Amino acid sequence: MIEFTGNGRCVLHSPTAMPQASGFLWNPQMLIQMNCRGYAVAQFMQPEPAKYTSGPMLEAKTFMQPEQPYYAHNPGRFFYVKDEHSGTVFSAPYEPVRAPVEQYRFFHEAHRIGWKIQADGLELELELTLANDRAAELWTITLTNPADSPRSLSLYPYFPVGYRSWMNQSGYFDPEHQAMICKAVTPYQKVQDYFANRHLKDWTCLLAETSPQAWEARQQHFEGEGGLHGPGGLQQQQLDKGEALYELPAAILQYRLKLAAGQSQRFRFVFAPVRDDQELAGLRKHFFGGQEDGFRRSADAYRVAMQQQQGCIRLNGPQPDFDQFVNHWLGRQLYYHGDVNRLTTDPQTRNYLQDNMGMAYLQPLRCREALITALSQQKRSGEMPDGILLHPEAELKYINQVPHADHCVWLPICLQAYLDETDDYALLDQKLSFADSEEPMSVANHLQLAMEWLLKARDHRGLSLIHQGDWCDPMNMVGYQGKGVSAWLTLASAYAFRLWADICLASDRAEQARHWQNQATELNKAANQWFWADNWYARGITDQGRLFGTAQDREGQIYLNPQSWAMLSGAADSSRLQSVQAAIEEKLMTPFGPMMLAPAYTAMVEDVGRLTQKFPGTAENGSVYNHAVMFYIHALYQQGLAEQAFELLKKMLPSETDWQQRGQFPVFIPNYYRGAWHQYPQRAGRSSQLFNTGTVSWYYRCVTEGLLGLRGCRQGLRVNPQLPAHWSQVRAIRHFRGARINVEIQRQATEKQQLYLDGVHVSGDCICGLQSGTEYQLKVILPGATGHD
Amino acid sequence: MIEFTGNGRCVLHSPTAMPQASGFLWNPQMLIQMNCRGYAVAQFMQPEPAKYTSGPMLEAKTFMQPEQPYYAHNPGRFFYVKDEHSGTVFSAPYEPVRAPVEQYRFFHEAHRIGWKIQADGLELELELTLANDRAAELWTITLTNPADSPRSLSLYPYFPVGYRSWMNQSGYFDPEHQAMICKAVTPYQKVQDYFANRHLKDWTCLLAETSPQAWEARQQHFEGEGGLHGPGGLQQQQLDKGEALYELPAAILQYRLKLAAGQSQRFRFVFAPVRDDQELAGLRKHFFGGQEDGFRRSADAYRVAMQQQQGCIRLNGPQPDFDQFVNHWLGRQLYYHGDVNRLTTDPQTRNYLQDNMGMAYLQPLRCREALITALSQQKRSGEMPDGILLHPEAELKYINQVPHADHCVWLPICLQAYLDETDDYALLDQKLSFADSEEPMSVANHLQLAMEWLLKARDHRGLSLIHQGDWCDPMNMVGYQGKGVSAWLTLASAYAFRLWADICLASDRAEQARHWQNQATELNKAANQWFWADNWYARGITDQGRLFGTAQDREGQIYLNPQSWAMLSGAADSSRLQSVQAAIEEKLMTPFGPMMLAPAYTAMVEDVGRLTQKFPGTAENGSVYNHAVMFYIHALYQQGLAEQAFELLKKMLPSETDWQQRGQFPVFIPNYYRGAWHQYPQRAGRSSQLFNTGTVSWYYRCVTEGLLGLRGCRQGLRVNPQLPAHWSQVRAIRHFRGARINVEIQRQATEKQQLYLDGVHVSGDCICGLQSGTEYQLKVILPGATGHD
Repeated sequence: MIEFTGNGRCVLHSPTAMPQASGFLWNPQMLIQMNCRGYAVAQFMQPEPAKYTSGPMLEAKTFMQPEQPYYAHNPGRFFYVKDEHSGTVFSAPYEPVRAPVEQYRFFHEAHRIGWKIQADGLELELELTLANDRAAELWTITLTNPADSPRSLSLYPYFPVGYRSWMNQSGYFDPEHQAMICKAVTPYQKVQDYFANRHLKDWTCLLAETSPQAWEARQQHFEGEGGLHGPGGLQQQQLDKGEALYELPAAILQYRLKLAAGQSQRFRFVFAPVRDDQELAGLRKHFFGGQEDGFRRSADAYRVAMQQQQGCIRLNGPQPDFDQFVNHWLGRQLYYHGDVNRLTTDPQTRNYLQDNMGMAYLQPLRCREALITALSQQKRSGEMPDGILLHPEAELKYINQVPHADHCVWLPICLQAYLDETDDYALLDQKLSFADSEEPMSVANHLQLAMEWLLKARDHRGLSLIHQGDWCDPMNMVGYQGKGVSAWLTLASAYAFRLWADICLASDRAEQARHWQNQATELNKAANQWFWADNWYARGITDQGRLFGTAQDREGQIYLNPQSWAMLSGAADSSRLQSVQAAIEEKLMTPFGPMMLAPAYTAMVEDVGRLTQKFPGTAENGSVYNHAVMFYIHALYQQGLAEQAFELLKKMLPSETDWQQRGQFPVFIPNYYRGAWHQYPQRAGRSSQLFNTGTVSWYYRCVTEGLLGLRGCRQGLRVNPQLPAHWSQVRAIRHFRGARINVEIQRQATEKQQLYLDGVHVSGDCICGLQSGTEYQLKVILPGATGHD
Repeated sequence: MIEFTGNGRCVLHSPTAMPQASGFLWNPQMLIQMNCRGYAVAQFMQPEPAKYTSGPMLEAKTFMQPEQPYYAHNPGRFFYVKDEHSGTVFSAPYEPVRAPVEQYRFFHEAHRIGWKIQADGLELELELTLANDRAAELWTITLTNPADSPRSLSLYPYFPVGYRSWMNQSGYFDPEHQAMICKAVTPYQKVQDYFANRHLKDWTCLLAETSPQAWEARQQHFEGEGGLHGPGGLQQQQLDKGEALYELPAAILQYRLKLAAGQSQRFRFVFAPVRDDQELAGLRKHFFGGQEDGFRRSADAYRVAMQQQQGCIRLNGPQPDFDQFVNHWLGRQLYYHGDVNRLTTDPQTRNYLQDNMGMAYLQPLRCREALITALSQQKRSGEMPDGILLHPEAELKYINQVPHADHCVWLPICLQAYLDETDDYALLDQKLSFADSEEPMSVANHLQLAMEWLLKARDHRGLSLIHQGDWCDPMNMVGYQGKGVSAWLTLASAYAFRLWADICLASDRAEQARHWQNQATELNKAANQWFWADNWYARGITDQGRLFGTAQDREGQIYLNPQSWAMLSGAADSSRLQSVQAAIEEKLMTPFGPMMLAPAYTAMVEDVGRLTQKFPGTAENGSVYNHAVMFYIHALYQQGLAEQAFELLKKMLPSETDWQQRGQFPVFIPNYYRGAWHQYPQRAGRSSQLFNTGTVSWYYRCVTEGLLGLRGCRQGLRVNPQLPAHWSQVRAIRHFRGARINVEIQRQATEKQQLYLDGVHVSGDCICGLQSGTEYQLKVILPGATGHD
């Protein structure tokens, strides 16, 4: 049903087997998630994210939702095709007619999403790509008549625009620009909003390369009594050329065409938000004007830009689908996060840091810039803000208005990855001011302040106060009265101190290093004293002094994160480590990975918070929350538990046995799969379909530094692959500090790992003296030949 | 296509001719607008208005919108009927299948909305009424087999609940309560909202009297690939009894039934928002439990409550449809406004006062209470707030957050109507405190302060400052810089002063009366000096000193309101009156009444404001805005222009010639009909379908005091009918200060009006000494017999 057909191209063979299957395209101005049946969710930046198509009623302004349902009048991009003789109608991609198709291929590549469809004896190719430099969808549809006799057809692009405003909306065809123009006035009531809204692009336009024979702008008139699956407009010979006057507008065109036997005809369209006539005229000229094919030039530029993002690793191992995913899709999703910060102007600080941690492996300079941007918004007290403002007019929105206690933790984590990858220790000495102070201080001092802030934000027992949340946003009532503490945050602080100590040690700050090592040890001790409960670490102690996340709880008995981070921080000794792992296997494991907690809460727990009100098995309430799973995998690799780590990496990706259960098209990792494996087994594994997730930078890091074990250090590249036992061989290309290293890892009957650089044996596990611009051959011999693969 | 069939019952014969045709039901806890095809918009109070069904995506929380489009997945109440032998399916009322019906009747009475449908050889009766004392819809469906052979059927109530929350939503059948329960958690992010939301009724339940054979809670599973018009679930013998687990929930039941020849079967359901199991159990017991038929008892109590509202007038004239509308629907709509204040907790002050002005003719005590409530929220400065808070936790929302300058104007207007109707001058001496002062002052002093506030709120020329709006909310940029003035507000202030002077005069406040008479004269003088422009009154002078609403403007040349209020205030002398009326006829008149302004604006005018951004011909931008039309009609009656006044009263109601153009089911007056008669003639007349409007209290007042001329005064009932010339006779019942007066008005060949009370000639035009509890016969002889009617 799904296959990779080379170069990462991923193909789905059915419009009904996985109706939510989708991909996404973005450029710095826009984002579109397009599903296999033609539904779309699209946003663009002006500079706040905004939509240019809506459903048929006033939609709430909100963040992207998981498991968003689709419905008949959902925004989408559709093409009706009518046979003028028989009257037969089908629509591409599949909605709204849902007519049976003879063949159906939905495919995705880095730079485009497309369909190849055979229906009603015709071949239809449909492609969506984006303009390289502005918010504009570029659509190409090619109709071919493969038969021996000619066909007489009508093609109707149907791009609904939806209910955009109760103040003013309209639509009409503009013959000068050869475009359907759907206008609205963003509704408001306060006079100051008039001035704030004046620059908004309130028009949605469909520009046609070819002049249509007819058109219609009135959605409901077009639909008539036939419904979207059989619109009245299609029963006419010609559309009515109607204007929408304070009615739901839609961009609907009609092309009448005759296709001789074997003949093809291509149509191209640009669909875009537009501010005014001048911009519209500019678009027309840019894409369809003049001698040059602007449409193609823009599409080509976008393709090149998207294909350039190759990442630091190229895998060629025994599992081709895994290679395809890592090489083409994982890096792409990582790049998306770092490139446009999930298309927000106020990314949550932890997301911003982790998303940009991923950029260390793609475009290290952008990771560096992000660190500087974030630290420049730090307070002089050391505290980090809840969101990083990326635009002068940006404001903290949604969850960023709720204070969280963990943001400082991510600084050394992100910094470590960046330094390992680049060895750019000079960054530590760069001077930056603060959000509330002009006083310049070095990055190292900023880090120092952040760590001290974490140290201070503890209670009398030395445990980290959680206030209204830590990494887990909706765990908002454990400590909202000022007393509750977080086991995870205590352990994460210890881990942060350890990492910062390592960085200090590597940068001639031995005394500081000792200090933070000691503080980490103290935190670990306190965590072990207060949070260890029987066989695993509890999640915290509430304002009322209740230890929770233990076997005493009816629900939420065990949380994954405290276990993973006790491994990372060093709190868990080997006996506790085994105990913790056994508990995870027993209580949390599912075929799709470990759940974030179990059993999922089914009722509000007032000293835990909003998390317990989420639906059992979704999001933070016990889903297989992939970001949390990655922490565990990272901890497993740190512990050298290669088998378990790789097994979980694989579990995060859909496989042939569970495509339909997950419903996930394997071109991105969703933020969660449903958990509640014991409570609701039938829904377990279902994908959230949400591609915004902190998961991917960690996944990329674990593949690079864990699985392949190719991690930077001050001396050079440390080599320590942790292949699963059944992998006897893998090849990879590692781009590292400007060098290209062609790596071959093989298992042999040897006692211990051996390295050969350009044929020369290297002692130890570190390759030193690599030169930027140079290509190397690295051979890694691992002990333990197997018969597998 | 539409007929009144006695007792106000209004019937529509087609599901497609007027697809937006709708009616509404309310009780103090809820409101539902139900359209003829099965779509519904429903709200209930908790205490803020909330929905219990939604569309399939997160909807914005907003006020009720005009011309709201419907779409396939719009919330609604539907019943699929399947023939088990043939597999034929139709649905009632008409959506979602839209199968052809043999007969279709959509009907509305005061207390219920229903359908009689013949389809697929079956008769189907469907009725919606409300519980008398809580938010609950009561549905009854009766299926009859009129044929000679038995039928084997499945009946499927399909009540979609929609996308209610990204936090948590689910649905299942509860056999104990015999109910489909759809649960959600109102989404939120801040901890304080948890406490604010805890009391919310987040469940939507469908209780069935009869146990179903099967059910389904998963909307998308039920719909399948067939779409709502042919859902996959109906192709199965039995629904799958599925649970919705974080999926769109819907309440779907299946009843398999066999109907012998001539046999009927009735099913009853309660659809309601519910807080918890306990409330659900209570509902079940209340409606379907025990010996008594609680469903019927509740429905009967609601019917009685709705039928009791008769108003002060009962008309029996030469135009039966007009009688039916006035007697049954106008009073009902009036009662709705006064009863539940448009189901808000913060009605806009001018709406609150005018809606309750209408209550003077229905339940005068409630008008009195409203005056007291409003004046208790007055500021000590005399200023009235923008909204009246009806609940301790209520807040000013939406447009009430924008300051408007006109609210004081409505106090003497509303008070005058109340005093005329009741002669309750004691009210003037009642002492009330202020919003910002405990100091008790008499109602008369409150009024005095309000008038003084209006006097102060003027510029150096004595013209009323408009700031961010007057009666016209979106005229928000004429004076937002503090200088612009409003012609309407200046004239309205003059009118308010005149009315207050009249009240003073009638209550032994002769000196005050003189003062306010003089002030009114001064205002009128100033208005005539500054606002008269050629042939009509302009609308105002902007912050920049620009006189607008004149022939110099490209758009918005003439506004209706300044003309009407110059007539009311006495500013317009007889020559100006004629000039103004001619201008209205020429520039503003349409077959549906006069437009509020013309030509409608097609582009933003930055010194007028948001109004100019609304779509041309809608709402304040040049629609036939019925509230404004009523001011004009009131002014015409005040001037004794009976013919024109009645013609406009009639134009406000749909007639046989324009049902489809308006699309308005004649059970309520919408807030507007589309204007822009010259700009967009094809859309002109289209109803907004919005039944919240200040129109109705004025309409009722004009029928009572203008058309029939039966208006109270200190001495008793002043009689001065202003029948149109073609009415030769009319009967009416007038309830007045506890007396019942059977009125007969006849034209005869006489010189001047003559009155006979119980057969005795009355000199003058006032009937005095009426006794409460007594019935009178009043005969009115009018001059001018005609041959009409």
